[in-house]
Amino acid sequence: MNATLVLRILGALLLFLTAALLLPIPFSLYFADGAWWIFLLAAGVTGAAGALLLHSCKSAKELSVRDGFAVVTFGWLLYSLFGALPFLFSGAIPSLLDAVFETMSGFTTTGATILTNIEALPASILFWRSLTQWLGGMGFIVLSLAILPMLGVGGMQLFKAEMPGPTADRLKPRIQDTAKLLWGVYVLLTAVQAVLLMLGGLTFFDSLCHAFTTLSSGGFSPRNASIGAYASAYVDWVVIFFMFLAGVNFTLHWHLLRGRGRDFFRSEELRVYLGLIVGLILVMMWFNQGAVYNSILENLRFSTFQVVSILTTTGFGTADYALWPAASQFLLFIAMFVGGCAGSTAGGMKVARVLLLFKHAQVQLFRLIHPRAVRLVKLGDLPVDREVMQAILGFFALFIGIFIFATVLMAATGLDMVSAAGSVIATLGVVGPGFGSVGPVENYGHILPFGKGVLILCMLLGRLELFTVLVLFFPSFWKK
Amino acid sequence: MNATLVLRILGALLLFLTAALLLPIPFSLYFADGAWWIFLLAAGVTGAAGALLLHSCKSAKELSVRDGFAVVTFGWLLYSLFGALPFLFSGAIPSLLDAVFETMSGFTTTGATILTNIEALPASILFWRSLTQWLGGMGFIVLSLAILPMLGVGGMQLFKAEMPGPTADRLKPRIQDTAKLLWGVYVLLTAVQAVLLMLGGLTFFDSLCHAFTTLSSGGFSPRNASIGAYASAYVDWVVIFFMFLAGVNFTLHWHLLRGRGRDFFRSEELRVYLGLIVGLILVMMWFNQGAVYNSILENLRFSTFQVVSILTTTGFGTADYALWPAASQFLLFIAMFVGGCAGSTAGGMKVARVLLLFKHAQVQLFRLIHPRAVRLVKLGDLPVDREVMQAILGFFALFIGIFIFATVLMAATGLDMVSAAGSVIATLGVVGPGFGSVGPVENYGHILPFGKGVLILCMLLGRLELFTVLVLFFPSFWKK
Repeated sequence: MNATLVLRILGALLLFLTAALLLPIPFSLYFADGAWWIFLLAAGVTGAAGALLLHSCKSAKELSVRDGFAVVTFGWLLYSLFGALPFLFSGAIPSLLDAVFETMSGFTTTGATILTNIEALPASILFWRSLTQWLGGMGFIVLSLAILPMLGVGGMQLFKAEMPGPTADRLKPRIQDTAKLLWGVYVLLTAVQAVLLMLGGLTFFDSLCHAFTTLSSGGFSPRNASIGAYASAYVDWVVIFFMFLAGVNFTLHWHLLRGRGRDFFRSEELRVYLGLIVGLILVMMWFNQGAVYNSILENLRFSTFQVVSILTTTGFGTADYALWPAASQFLLFIAMFVGGCAGSTAGGMKVARVLLLFKHAQVQLFRLIHPRAVRLVKLGDLPVDREVMQAILGFFALFIGIFIFATVLMAATGLDMVSAAGSVIATLGVVGPGFGSVGPVENYGHILPFGKGVLILCMLLGRLELFTVLVLFFPSFWKK
Repeated sequence: MNATLVLRILGALLLFLTAALLLPIPFSLYFADGAWWIFLLAAGVTGAAGALLLHSCKSAKELSVRDGFAVVTFGWLLYSLFGALPFLFSGAIPSLLDAVFETMSGFTTTGATILTNIEALPASILFWRSLTQWLGGMGFIVLSLAILPMLGVGGMQLFKAEMPGPTADRLKPRIQDTAKLLWGVYVLLTAVQAVLLMLGGLTFFDSLCHAFTTLSSGGFSPRNASIGAYASAYVDWVVIFFMFLAGVNFTLHWHLLRGRGRDFFRSEELRVYLGLIVGLILVMMWFNQGAVYNSILENLRFSTFQVVSILTTTGFGTADYALWPAASQFLLFIAMFVGGCAGSTAGGMKVARVLLLFKHAQVQLFRLIHPRAVRLVKLGDLPVDREVMQAILGFFALFIGIFIFATVLMAATGLDMVSAAGSVIATLGVVGPGFGSVGPVENYGHILPFGKGVLILCMLLGRLELFTVLVLFFPSFWKK
């Protein structure tokens, strides 16, 4: 690994974070919450660290694949450390571990919080909290659609073949151009949602914060009761629609905006994602009707919200699903493993991977009946490369393995089985709310320090698609 | 599929069951429980059905692979139907569904029971109950070591390469010879255990019944409190030792009995199985010390018993692990997925498959760091065939998929999440006791009829290694 080059890039990334840390200042001045100097201070510290790294580490070498893994993993880690400064300096979150937990939850777009009374915080701090998720979502789009495919990780290699999209080696040859295109889509959708929320009666501040954390599948809310605080069907449906969009591959949005709706619906993953949502809503409504809701319209509204919020790993809430029937809860639990589409801001294993797993299993069964027939796993019309399929199967095994290992650790801290498993999948799947003592109306404040450390690592692993982080644990990664 | 040939073989299998149904009669006469005529009647009905099938379906054709799947699946089903007759005729289990549940639990060596007061039943009925497990274990040894490899299913293809064993195409060319060899080992171990239990003060009847259900990893006990009824450390350790042996590949026992101990310990799966048991016991003792047990010796005895009982999917109990810390319970929950070694009477996914899954994931990580290096997944010293690896990955996906689907169905019957997931893995992994309302001191009597149906199917799927049953659901299986 080329350490000096990696440090230099990390320095540049910190300078970008410095700029981001200045953004809450106008809000601080407008709301006169007195926190403006905190952001100035945090930006100063971050900027100094960035400049130091950038100028002390000179390197003319090319970035290798291994360097790429290190930049991504340590980049997310550094952001979570320096991004925690406003929480610490303002005293909003006095503990370092808690502040890092909250910031990691922000930049990974998880949405798990250690805060009990969110509304007591200064407006600018709440804005920063939402902004970390929006920036995290932005970062992940580029990561999953441009950087990871180059490193040989992630489900997106699939789509190079499936459709002509703005991936690294097709439409635009450079990461920067890909990023600009997709970020344009991301910014546009955020703006549209913010306007629609304002039309629903939300303040500019609330609209912007929620648009930030919807498009990023984040789920942080400046309100204690999340989206439920507005008790408005209109707001609920606007948020549902944009959560749904956030769970779609962003290259498809780009197609749609260019008027190529056929490319949009030609994607097999999108169709399965749609089918999954509709199916889950119907089954959930079946379980909830009578047991939780008596009105079908109410049932539709709340079941849809919770299903879309969890499957897209956003984590907003309008109902306490911990009070729903066990079957409904278990479906949400499984939805946390699945997540949204590859190339979206959603987490989880991704619909494409789960789909291919079942196709793989089906092919294995088919082979037993027709031993001499050749049948390949396909996505859309094209066969899936054998190496990609192997990687997906390996990803699945690792995801389940990490889930089990982390759940044992969480249970060892004294959590019951449901809370332990719930806290792990809510962070590993970057969802936010879990089950039991970390359920939708609870928070992560009561978790013991060791447990918080485990969950911080789960968020990082889940967001960076496991492999990116795990390779760093191989001794041979660090050898020349 | 050649229906007449399949029916003919099923007829022959029913005649074998007829003979087995006569075995409890001596016990009935000795204990004068008055149930002798019930077995005579059941044998009569079964024998008539068998003879009818055997003689009305004449076929000279060769058995194809597809026919093999049908024989195995329908064979186990028919045994569970006709084997239920003594329970029904005697009134011990008046409901047909319950009787089939209990018998399927017997022949699949699961050990899940719907009975509340086991000791109230006639001795001969209890003997039959234990015998179904012993016969099921016998059947599964031949199935997994001789039949399934020929059909292209199961983890045992692996071992053809790993070591010279009495598999179909190596040592002895015919199923019958393989069966005789392994059955010899099975009968010998059962006899030794029965004698050792008698030395511990158990009656001949209790010793035999428990030896039957230990070597088969079954777990049925004629006592309400299972092995805990004897409150004897000696009995506990004898049972632990034989449960451990039941979870080992029976070809390895055969090596050991021939004095080839090196072949025994050369097996990588065996070493991992051993390591897993020791590791689980140590971690479990760590969690339980102070929380459940104050004496280390007591902790060792009860933690070891429960770990070995669950990992080998036997399901005997000497402690109510539902009262253990959540971390201990979760480890047992995961152990139910793993199971014992391939080629043993244990269920679950099998140690070899889980081991290879993690090796596969490791290779995927290694490839990212060394893209040009070639590294194959190995078991022992030999590389694993690509097709076998694909089948194992498909098996894993299916196992998890079925677990999820069945858990949703069980939760829909009104069970809480822990009981729903616990009941499914306890049957799909052919363990017996689960968690929550189907925990170690509970039973399956309270499950609704629909739920019992789901669990019966889970037992069948789990015991026959999924594929064998699932191929029957493919429409193309039934076409010419």
